[in-house]
Amino acid sequence: MAKKNKPQKLKARLPRGFVDRMPSEIRAGEEMIAKIKAVYEHYGFDPIETPAFEYTDCLGKFLPDTDRPNAGVFSVQDDDEQWMSLRYDLTAPLARHVAENINEIQLPFRSYRAGYVFRNEKPGPGRFRQFMQFDADSVGSPGVQTDAEMCMMMADTMEALGIERGNYVIRVNNRKVLDGLMDAIGLDGDEHAETRLTVLRAIDKLDKFGPEGVKLLLGEGRKDESGDFTKGAGLSDENADLVLGYMAGSETIENDGQKELETMRSIFESCGYGEDRVKIDPSVVRGLEYYTGPVYEAELLFDVTNEKGEVVQFGSVGGGGRYDGLVKRFVGRDVPATGFSIGVSRLMSALKNLGKLGDDTVLPPVLVTVMDGDVASLGHYQKMVMDLRAAGIRAEMYQGNWKKFGNQLKYADKRGCPLAIIQGSDEREQGVIQIKDLEEGKRLSAEIEDNQTWRESRPAQIEVPEGDLVSKVKEMLEAQAKDRESAK
Amino acid sequence: MAKKNKPQKLKARLPRGFVDRMPSEIRAGEEMIAKIKAVYEHYGFDPIETPAFEYTDCLGKFLPDTDRPNAGVFSVQDDDEQWMSLRYDLTAPLARHVAENINEIQLPFRSYRAGYVFRNEKPGPGRFRQFMQFDADSVGSPGVQTDAEMCMMMADTMEALGIERGNYVIRVNNRKVLDGLMDAIGLDGDEHAETRLTVLRAIDKLDKFGPEGVKLLLGEGRKDESGDFTKGAGLSDENADLVLGYMAGSETIENDGQKELETMRSIFESCGYGEDRVKIDPSVVRGLEYYTGPVYEAELLFDVTNEKGEVVQFGSVGGGGRYDGLVKRFVGRDVPATGFSIGVSRLMSALKNLGKLGDDTVLPPVLVTVMDGDVASLGHYQKMVMDLRAAGIRAEMYQGNWKKFGNQLKYADKRGCPLAIIQGSDEREQGVIQIKDLEEGKRLSAEIEDNQTWRESRPAQIEVPEGDLVSKVKEMLEAQAKDRESAK
Repeated sequence: MAKKNKPQKLKARLPRGFVDRMPSEIRAGEEMIAKIKAVYEHYGFDPIETPAFEYTDCLGKFLPDTDRPNAGVFSVQDDDEQWMSLRYDLTAPLARHVAENINEIQLPFRSYRAGYVFRNEKPGPGRFRQFMQFDADSVGSPGVQTDAEMCMMMADTMEALGIERGNYVIRVNNRKVLDGLMDAIGLDGDEHAETRLTVLRAIDKLDKFGPEGVKLLLGEGRKDESGDFTKGAGLSDENADLVLGYMAGSETIENDGQKELETMRSIFESCGYGEDRVKIDPSVVRGLEYYTGPVYEAELLFDVTNEKGEVVQFGSVGGGGRYDGLVKRFVGRDVPATGFSIGVSRLMSALKNLGKLGDDTVLPPVLVTVMDGDVASLGHYQKMVMDLRAAGIRAEMYQGNWKKFGNQLKYADKRGCPLAIIQGSDEREQGVIQIKDLEEGKRLSAEIEDNQTWRESRPAQIEVPEGDLVSKVKEMLEAQAKDRESAK
Repeated sequence: MAKKNKPQKLKARLPRGFVDRMPSEIRAGEEMIAKIKAVYEHYGFDPIETPAFEYTDCLGKFLPDTDRPNAGVFSVQDDDEQWMSLRYDLTAPLARHVAENINEIQLPFRSYRAGYVFRNEKPGPGRFRQFMQFDADSVGSPGVQTDAEMCMMMADTMEALGIERGNYVIRVNNRKVLDGLMDAIGLDGDEHAETRLTVLRAIDKLDKFGPEGVKLLLGEGRKDESGDFTKGAGLSDENADLVLGYMAGSETIENDGQKELETMRSIFESCGYGEDRVKIDPSVVRGLEYYTGPVYEAELLFDVTNEKGEVVQFGSVGGGGRYDGLVKRFVGRDVPATGFSIGVSRLMSALKNLGKLGDDTVLPPVLVTVMDGDVASLGHYQKMVMDLRAAGIRAEMYQGNWKKFGNQLKYADKRGCPLAIIQGSDEREQGVIQIKDLEEGKRLSAEIEDNQTWRESRPAQIEVPEGDLVSKVKEMLEAQAKDRESAK
């Protein structure tokens, strides 16, 4: 029956998988992005921005297989019947941008960009349909020295954000090595594409399930605690052991990929980036289909408690790799490229965890309260606000229904205003104003039992000549700032 | 025949009405947005952000009538059959946000946000389907003192951006006054909705066509230079004169709207905002349907040449008004609100016109060129780059195909690199490096005929011990900076 009742009014609700962002989160995000940007600029990268929409064929289908094949993106059909999609990452649009402007762009082309991407997936806890990525790419750079620099830049970025050495590591592998491994266990050729994917996914799970768990996934399959069974790759014991040996470092694949990793290792050494910062690791896979060479991943090593109450390593906050084929799709010739992406909100939650993101440091405004609502008074109150602002003080006049004065102080309290300015008609006649110290007021009510403190404290409300408004407010704000500083 | 040929490769192209943004534009935009944000924060506004998608019913249909009715927005249907749309402005999503969180939000609620909005319109010159708006709103503020403050904040914003007094004006009107005018000429009631719209549009054209042109549009219609005929509102001569009299200020409408304008005028006076900054102007209309009281518009008064080669005033860069009904749709009770929106790219082009937006001031990186591609050399070059960066110098190693050295210098030139570092195997053996001054080099080739200058100039290329790399580069960059400074 409830279903049949039409709602009387429109229900305000966000579509599933989308969120609003609050001031402290926005400010923390801006602070973080500014720090990352500074590193990238320092490395010679310049910003470039592409729009939210691309033609669907230009984006291509490179998403890691989603739960819902043929979905994963939001698409609309344009007037002229062409399909457009919202970008699902920032790499495919960059490839389109470079290809479209290939005659104007000076290669190699170093660029960075932060922007929202969209995934038409089933939303879940911590899984959003709109989220921000921050990418850096070098297009037209054939050598692995570029991949090596990308890894070092990721390491520098982690440290610029205040993540200490030991709390992060950049792990590096090479798709060609993984391809060689697939060949070695007889999984080359199109007919084994699906099995290869199952094996790669098993390798990717080393952190989570350990070697025993991976062995099950390489063989018949693995049952988790809840009893859910994941079908395995069906490798022979011998081949499964070969894969595990490769992952443990006892088996090596000798091919171009391995040589590239050696070159990268040598560059890391020359530049003084030890294994505590950048490390070759055979278990790195990276999900996206378009990678063709080195792949790399920034992993945070400190422990956090996950939603199931388990203590786990924080894990990946971003990664990337070489994608030599993406621009070629458009221009027909090789345009080698490599780059990586940082998951902005995931990195932000890591930094919050580490206490490395400033709290909201913007001081709420001084509130000029309203005692009389006639036109002349309103103009007078507004003028006080303007005078405060002209002196560099963040200030506002109360603009709700002024008739309930209690609501004004409640507003100031909820908003965290440091001071309230009060002037009724009596005070106005006498040319004075009241300044209420709301921080001191709070402290007084908390410390009411301590007489000594009370006597030493600043008075919570004072009366001053109206001409002294600005100077007195300044003085009181400075006293509050000192109090906050010494309370730290 | 051309139509039947399938393209051999994918064509890299942006969907119509969308654009990529280049470094100088991105940096100029960030500079501008930071300045605007500082004003809003100072006025007590805090950031808030909503996602790109909203449920279509939550957005409502408030777009000014588009060329294509029932279109105007990009919409997709979700899994559960609900329609979602990309936001077409930032006001409707704010109303949804406030309504959804009405019990947590402390009213009045001052907030600002910059973000992309999307319009599914026919793209044209200067008309994009994705563009950025920058909004500030106060929700839960019933009095026109809030509208007055919004107008003054817009004026302050213009000046914070460097637009001098006299080059802008904030024009203010009130929808209730316009409603009163419609009543006075007998256009009240639903049956005259369309005619009212035609009259309002005619009023809005005063700037463009002058009183004579408006009179034609109020009457039978107007033929433009190209011969195109715009049908008029069909008012009697008497009524058209009444409208023109209202616009000229000789006829006044006495109602609540007029009283509100008087209150606003009085607040502007108290706060010292003269008519050169904020001005009541009966011809302001504002297109959006949801306005219910004061409407206001920021107009730039300096002349520019339009795409037709005509000299015209730059015109509006943003505006807004009171929308008391938007939140009510959700919560069923009055939640009065007022706010405005700035068109970011339009304002940017105005500032460029006035020379008020910094050129791209980020210095391109110092280029470490590559003479030898063996692993040891690559590590060595990369280490030089790292040393420069560690000293705070923006630097990069050339990462294209190193074998053609000419390409490396061409790259440095196109990129505007200030210095190039060169070390071949001979130099490496001797422990020296070459530093090429690319700015000086350019100057020398321009001034080759002037011997005196040539002798006084810095040498364009010097050899220094490798250990002096960082100190010498610093010194040369400082000398270049001085040259640039004195060249101004």
